[in-house]
Amino acid sequence: MGDGDTTLDAPAAAAGGGAKTSLTARAVDFPRWYQEVVARAEMADNGPVRGSMVIRPWGYGIWERLQWAIDERIKAAGAHNAYFPLFIPEAFMRLEAEHVEGFDPELWMVTRGGGRELEEPVVVRPTSETVINHFFAKWIQSHRDLPLLVNQWCNVARWELRPRLFLRTTEFLWQEGHTAHADEEGARAYALRILTDVYRDAMEEVAAVPVLVGHKTARERFAGAVRTWTCEAMMGDGKALQMGTSHELGQNFARAFDIQYADAAGGMRHVWQTSWGASTRLIGALIMTHGDDFGLRLPPALAPIEVVVLCVREDEAVRRAAGTLADELRHSGRRVHLDDRTDTGFGRRSVDWELKGVPVRVEIGPRDLGEGKATVVTRHRRTKELVGLSSVRETVERICGCAAAELRNEALAFRTARTATVASMAETLEAGVAGFARVPWRVVGDAGELELASESLSVRCLQRHDGGLAAGGEADDELVAVVGRSY
Amino acid sequence: MGDGDTTLDAPAAAAGGGAKTSLTARAVDFPRWYQEVVARAEMADNGPVRGSMVIRPWGYGIWERLQWAIDERIKAAGAHNAYFPLFIPEAFMRLEAEHVEGFDPELWMVTRGGGRELEEPVVVRPTSETVINHFFAKWIQSHRDLPLLVNQWCNVARWELRPRLFLRTTEFLWQEGHTAHADEEGARAYALRILTDVYRDAMEEVAAVPVLVGHKTARERFAGAVRTWTCEAMMGDGKALQMGTSHELGQNFARAFDIQYADAAGGMRHVWQTSWGASTRLIGALIMTHGDDFGLRLPPALAPIEVVVLCVREDEAVRRAAGTLADELRHSGRRVHLDDRTDTGFGRRSVDWELKGVPVRVEIGPRDLGEGKATVVTRHRRTKELVGLSSVRETVERICGCAAAELRNEALAFRTARTATVASMAETLEAGVAGFARVPWRVVGDAGELELASESLSVRCLQRHDGGLAAGGEADDELVAVVGRSY
Repeated sequence: MGDGDTTLDAPAAAAGGGAKTSLTARAVDFPRWYQEVVARAEMADNGPVRGSMVIRPWGYGIWERLQWAIDERIKAAGAHNAYFPLFIPEAFMRLEAEHVEGFDPELWMVTRGGGRELEEPVVVRPTSETVINHFFAKWIQSHRDLPLLVNQWCNVARWELRPRLFLRTTEFLWQEGHTAHADEEGARAYALRILTDVYRDAMEEVAAVPVLVGHKTARERFAGAVRTWTCEAMMGDGKALQMGTSHELGQNFARAFDIQYADAAGGMRHVWQTSWGASTRLIGALIMTHGDDFGLRLPPALAPIEVVVLCVREDEAVRRAAGTLADELRHSGRRVHLDDRTDTGFGRRSVDWELKGVPVRVEIGPRDLGEGKATVVTRHRRTKELVGLSSVRETVERICGCAAAELRNEALAFRTARTATVASMAETLEAGVAGFARVPWRVVGDAGELELASESLSVRCLQRHDGGLAAGGEADDELVAVVGRSY
Repeated sequence: MGDGDTTLDAPAAAAGGGAKTSLTARAVDFPRWYQEVVARAEMADNGPVRGSMVIRPWGYGIWERLQWAIDERIKAAGAHNAYFPLFIPEAFMRLEAEHVEGFDPELWMVTRGGGRELEEPVVVRPTSETVINHFFAKWIQSHRDLPLLVNQWCNVARWELRPRLFLRTTEFLWQEGHTAHADEEGARAYALRILTDVYRDAMEEVAAVPVLVGHKTARERFAGAVRTWTCEAMMGDGKALQMGTSHELGQNFARAFDIQYADAAGGMRHVWQTSWGASTRLIGALIMTHGDDFGLRLPPALAPIEVVVLCVREDEAVRRAAGTLADELRHSGRRVHLDDRTDTGFGRRSVDWELKGVPVRVEIGPRDLGEGKATVVTRHRRTKELVGLSSVRETVERICGCAAAELRNEALAFRTARTATVASMAETLEAGVAGFARVPWRVVGDAGELELASESLSVRCLQRHDGGLAAGGEADDELVAVVGRSY
């Protein structure tokens, strides 16, 4: 090993002891690669009931950090967390016609409880608009009660025909926000605030996943909403993933659940509402955006372990130096794990930490230690450098400080390379298969959407030409449609 | 208003504008008082499905802080969070005979999904031993995989005949920890570590609720456990509430689910296990331990708002001073709310904050402000003091610094006063109705437990004479039984 940066040979750990990664290459079979990363990085397992999921500690540790990032931003936007029941009377689901149509085939029904048939079956919540609005009708009396801003972190259940870990599971974890406002402008502004200040910011700044923002076509919007705002990201295979949505519900639920408030003059008015959600599917997005042929790559802020210090082999001096170094890195505030399981080969362990996406590995072996040095490996670039022990801390800080930005830039460059600006349906169909096609919405329209659907493509969102939100009610022919295949 | 400490007249806000608390007195009807506090402090509502619960933002804000306190301690004990599915195949529930008998009458069953009858009905988890042990059997191969320490925060559903908000609801939120160890000693030590370092510590140090620790009799222990350790607290009506339990499961589930590991010599052995849980019922305990006739009293660490700064009435100088003071208190790290809703009477608002249990109220009115002063009200003592504006911060810090200890001492004194050390069944029956009876376990025994049950009493836990844990397998006649009525 020489000084300075060295790009690792593939696979990373071949030099370390003969273990190999043996992941399917992404270019060969992306879905299979995804499945292998989820399993081998110990992110999740299939549950015993079809389509259900066990989120293992490594996956859940990432989810906790995503949750904290989103929760912090939700609180900054003034919403308070609460909790509404899992079981919803079937009758509630029928109160808002479009909403029920949207969810009917997806419902899980409880028909027995306490050893008897229930008099009325109950639905396991697929989302909580109905039950929350039932309570909003009780809680909201006066304009003084508005805006009412609540959020809940919970599980929801939806029947899935083609389940896939993190991306589509019968049960998933999410947050769902529900708000009521005195007027349409207040509701719209809040839906947009959530879209940009909560979702886009958490996704780009914390998860390092660049997103496009825009609104859905009538065909693609949430059942019961008048407008659905969305964050869309491009995965490593060029397909789109919907990362989070924020809905303007207008007065649809307010009328169905009779949510009225007395205005300052004493007149009764229906509220205007929003709802918005982001789920464990973000973990799938993280894997598919940043993952490479060697496994996961995690931005440090989301990594349950930021730095792993590995003892290359059993040696008292190595063990002591590794312990000291781990403590030193912990003192600088990093989440550090000391891997001294020298009864397992170094190569095997090194590959496993690479698979799990730990941002930095510090490898300490007797030979390097004899020269007062250790090898620092940067996961996202797959480079290693031999540095003096006294410089390890500084090196780790440098890597952790730039990893997220470099991952984000890489994903952005990939998306840019796979995005084509086109002017016809024929070009759209071609470009949409490889990545995103940006095409004037007037070229697509309702009829074009049907044609796209027949090719498994869809309009992911509508934007202004400059990528901005069409929040001012721009005319249809000023809009650009972003077209792609989607998860 | 004079200087120095003044105990408030009842109700607190009578002087402030004629509003009154109008809670039922605890001594008159404790259950009704409880119900009123839950409703009036906006802690929770009954859900639309019988026995279900909506946790409103004020209640949930308290739960979040309890969660953080418990989660921090669970992580310090080395366990990692994960998530297992809500839906459990019915067959899983039948694998451990005693376990299934314990839960059969409480199960909620899903029989329909995706618009069809399910081939196999699934159970909505009442607890997750079965599904988690199914995965432990897959994940555990070698002694290197042990101990395996996982925890999950989730909802569970159990049929309840007599539901009561926070205390007994068909669905509740909790954490459930599940661990596997190489030997019996490891499992027992971990079950005890959770009992004392996680539960007892969080309850006493954070919630300020003193608890007794001990183990359950065979009659009272968890279905499927070989020993159940428990924290028991005395509520304001003298009844006991089980606050959290930690179970030694022995090898019951290990055999039922065939969880084996290869020891260092290559021999196959069944693991030894624990499980442990604490739930939203802790919020009920908090209300019933610290609440008084004016509402809730919260230890600052659990209060969503620690200090409310109230503008007594509309006045530009008052508003400005209140804003400045609120900012100053925020700077010292407190959670502060500025209540400037002067279109609502000061008395009404004052009573509401008292009901919600906010630890400190700072009241600013034009007259006091003219003298450069504000009134600081200590919720848990119901005392007020007129202090100079420049001393408010220091006064608030002093109150927040001692509130938890004072609440804990008060609860401890109450429990001590209501606990009788007795030597016969007759005395036990008498003392147990008013509070706790401490009686030698040999006086009670299995036959005595039946007699207690006929009087709605039960053995809450078994301890050593000195209140310590009988963790060394003490002989039966060295044990003391704590007897009381329970929630």
